[in-house]
Amino acid sequence: MINIAVLGYGVVGSGVVSVLDKNADRITQNAAQEISVKYILDIREFSDDPYSHLFIKDFEIIVSDPEVQIVVEAIGGIDAALMYTRRCLEIGKSVVTSNKELIAEHGSELLQLAKEKNANYLFEASVGGGIPVIRPLTQCMTANIITEIYGILNGTTNYILTDMDKTGADFSASLLDAQNKGYAEADPTADVDGHDTCRKICILSSLAFGQHVFPSQVQTEGITGVTIEDLHYASELGYKIKLLGRARVVGDKISAYVAPHLISNDSILAVVDGVMNGVVVRGNAVGDVVFCGAGAGKLPTASSVIADVIDASKHLHAQKWISWKTGYDGFVKSPMLLDSAWYIRTDASREKVEKEFGNVIFSEGSSIETAFMTGVMNGEMIDDILKRGISAKSQFRVLGDH
Amino acid sequence: MINIAVLGYGVVGSGVVSVLDKNADRITQNAAQEISVKYILDIREFSDDPYSHLFIKDFEIIVSDPEVQIVVEAIGGIDAALMYTRRCLEIGKSVVTSNKELIAEHGSELLQLAKEKNANYLFEASVGGGIPVIRPLTQCMTANIITEIYGILNGTTNYILTDMDKTGADFSASLLDAQNKGYAEADPTADVDGHDTCRKICILSSLAFGQHVFPSQVQTEGITGVTIEDLHYASELGYKIKLLGRARVVGDKISAYVAPHLISNDSILAVVDGVMNGVVVRGNAVGDVVFCGAGAGKLPTASSVIADVIDASKHLHAQKWISWKTGYDGFVKSPMLLDSAWYIRTDASREKVEKEFGNVIFSEGSSIETAFMTGVMNGEMIDDILKRGISAKSQFRVLGDH
Repeated sequence: MINIAVLGYGVVGSGVVSVLDKNADRITQNAAQEISVKYILDIREFSDDPYSHLFIKDFEIIVSDPEVQIVVEAIGGIDAALMYTRRCLEIGKSVVTSNKELIAEHGSELLQLAKEKNANYLFEASVGGGIPVIRPLTQCMTANIITEIYGILNGTTNYILTDMDKTGADFSASLLDAQNKGYAEADPTADVDGHDTCRKICILSSLAFGQHVFPSQVQTEGITGVTIEDLHYASELGYKIKLLGRARVVGDKISAYVAPHLISNDSILAVVDGVMNGVVVRGNAVGDVVFCGAGAGKLPTASSVIADVIDASKHLHAQKWISWKTGYDGFVKSPMLLDSAWYIRTDASREKVEKEFGNVIFSEGSSIETAFMTGVMNGEMIDDILKRGISAKSQFRVLGDH
Repeated sequence: MINIAVLGYGVVGSGVVSVLDKNADRITQNAAQEISVKYILDIREFSDDPYSHLFIKDFEIIVSDPEVQIVVEAIGGIDAALMYTRRCLEIGKSVVTSNKELIAEHGSELLQLAKEKNANYLFEASVGGGIPVIRPLTQCMTANIITEIYGILNGTTNYILTDMDKTGADFSASLLDAQNKGYAEADPTADVDGHDTCRKICILSSLAFGQHVFPSQVQTEGITGVTIEDLHYASELGYKIKLLGRARVVGDKISAYVAPHLISNDSILAVVDGVMNGVVVRGNAVGDVVFCGAGAGKLPTASSVIADVIDASKHLHAQKWISWKTGYDGFVKSPMLLDSAWYIRTDASREKVEKEFGNVIFSEGSSIETAFMTGVMNGEMIDDILKRGISAKSQFRVLGDH
């Protein structure tokens, strides 16, 4: 039997305890032993909870109990989570988490500490929620040089864009709808401004390219600039608009950024709707592999956390070898020099647009403003052209094979 | 350094040797040691090949060389492949393969043998080619009770159906095109009659549900009955037609079968086109997870084979615990009692159809015959109705959440 402790009894923590109970037989079979929750750490009171006898408020009890071999950190954020994770790893307890904020900022340090102490620090649930992404990337695509990785990494913004597209509601109405359904938080900033997507592309990039990529290195644009008109014009052109986190190899460095993109209707990510997530990984042997599923939610997240717990239980004294270097200034380049076609919405006339951009594809969705797709050019080229008197009300990349 | 031997130098074997060479640095890094091909076994002559010095014709050299710890079986088929695999496992060498025919027929025996000898028998490439499917299923979804698994598992038939749909060519013209492009073999029977898909759903079912599922237990229908008219009428109704292998839990048994299905245009599998494959796994915690990518081909298959070689190299003396029981008569039930909506093409009049089926949705794609979608009913119910004077020229299930 393996004893674990769960730190934090919010959505993730309670989901883990619940799925461990509900699927106990299957989990015991897959782990080849029983996995038992010995403690749940939370400062709040849960006296009516079926697991109330497991609650404690003193973290020291967990650290000092040699029977606890794996700790699930479901606190979130950085401060306490970082301190507790360090303490656990330092004495050789493995830690499993979905805490993308902590990993994006302190992943290399914590992985290094885990390595030194022959413990595991696993975080499958931190990207893509219930979708297996990190393990396939680090264990199934090991024969490949990864050249690009991108995806719809945030369910809240994808729900809002899908809702706007399907109902014609504007951003604030769709946000309110998402909040009412529990898909968006009261303060939606981290989601709608792209910060959550940024943390996730940092984690994927660090794994795929071997250097820690920090959120501060990744140019990040959210979805507040996407209007129902943009969705309408894009649709008329045969595209959806999705918020992507994207990273690709450029020489011996990478470009990484977060921004809304037009995605062709016949690509898989175009049908990844609502709160679903989708991740594309490009390897030089396998080509593109796409992973889709529930990117968040209590049970899907618990599914990934518990898979990590099972994995850690099988590798108590064997390091899983997930690691990356500490990163450096200049490893992540601005996306300005990346080529793509562009979608632009402007009040400028079609004549003016054609004069400056040459051949473009106009959306027929409007007579009162001009929306179009350019040929392939990088960000500097397009900014140069726009300076010649075309004021862009929206300006998004079109995802393509450039 | 790990020494391996490659049995068979066809598409898969030569791809493995080629990718091991091309991505050597990355593979060495991921395996934490060099992986070196010591022998290539093939009865043919490859004197001009860059690896000609590695070729041997005597299998006994490989078996008796203690330096060879992992063997890649890329012979295909059953006879020699089975004999060589048994010999290798018996003396504790791990075996990696993409041989779905062998695993579908002899998987439980070979896995049991591997377990007894503390060796590994790994076959990520046998389903979905380069797409990570088996490892995610067995290592990432371990907290879930799997209730259903299905997918587009054969690139040849998917290419043909996509080509028919997009160009309006008939089956034989699209097959010829696929043969010319190297996507279909001279004798296409195993693909177009669904046998290849059958083997793959057998492997997935065995892994997901824990009992060996044999091809002979799985009712199998290929794509030769799908006409361009069917594709046209389905399109008019908002659907694609795809060949699916499908298995789902029914009580303490399963139903498994292979057949063409109508798939709604807004589902992910509907945009999995050409030679791509897509697999959907439904878990009771995570919901639906979808994996898509290149389902075959030299480099994608090599990508998965080498990932298994790397994994085996890290677990030379630790069994990976992939296993299933030996299976039994009656574990796999006929799909006749599974509910679904149905697509039917017939010469019967709309009046006759409505009289027998009640409310249906007619495709407006034709005036000379009648194509429609029924409500939800099982196979016996629909056969009963069809016996009342409606002769079905085509009859396919509509994939839905039943």
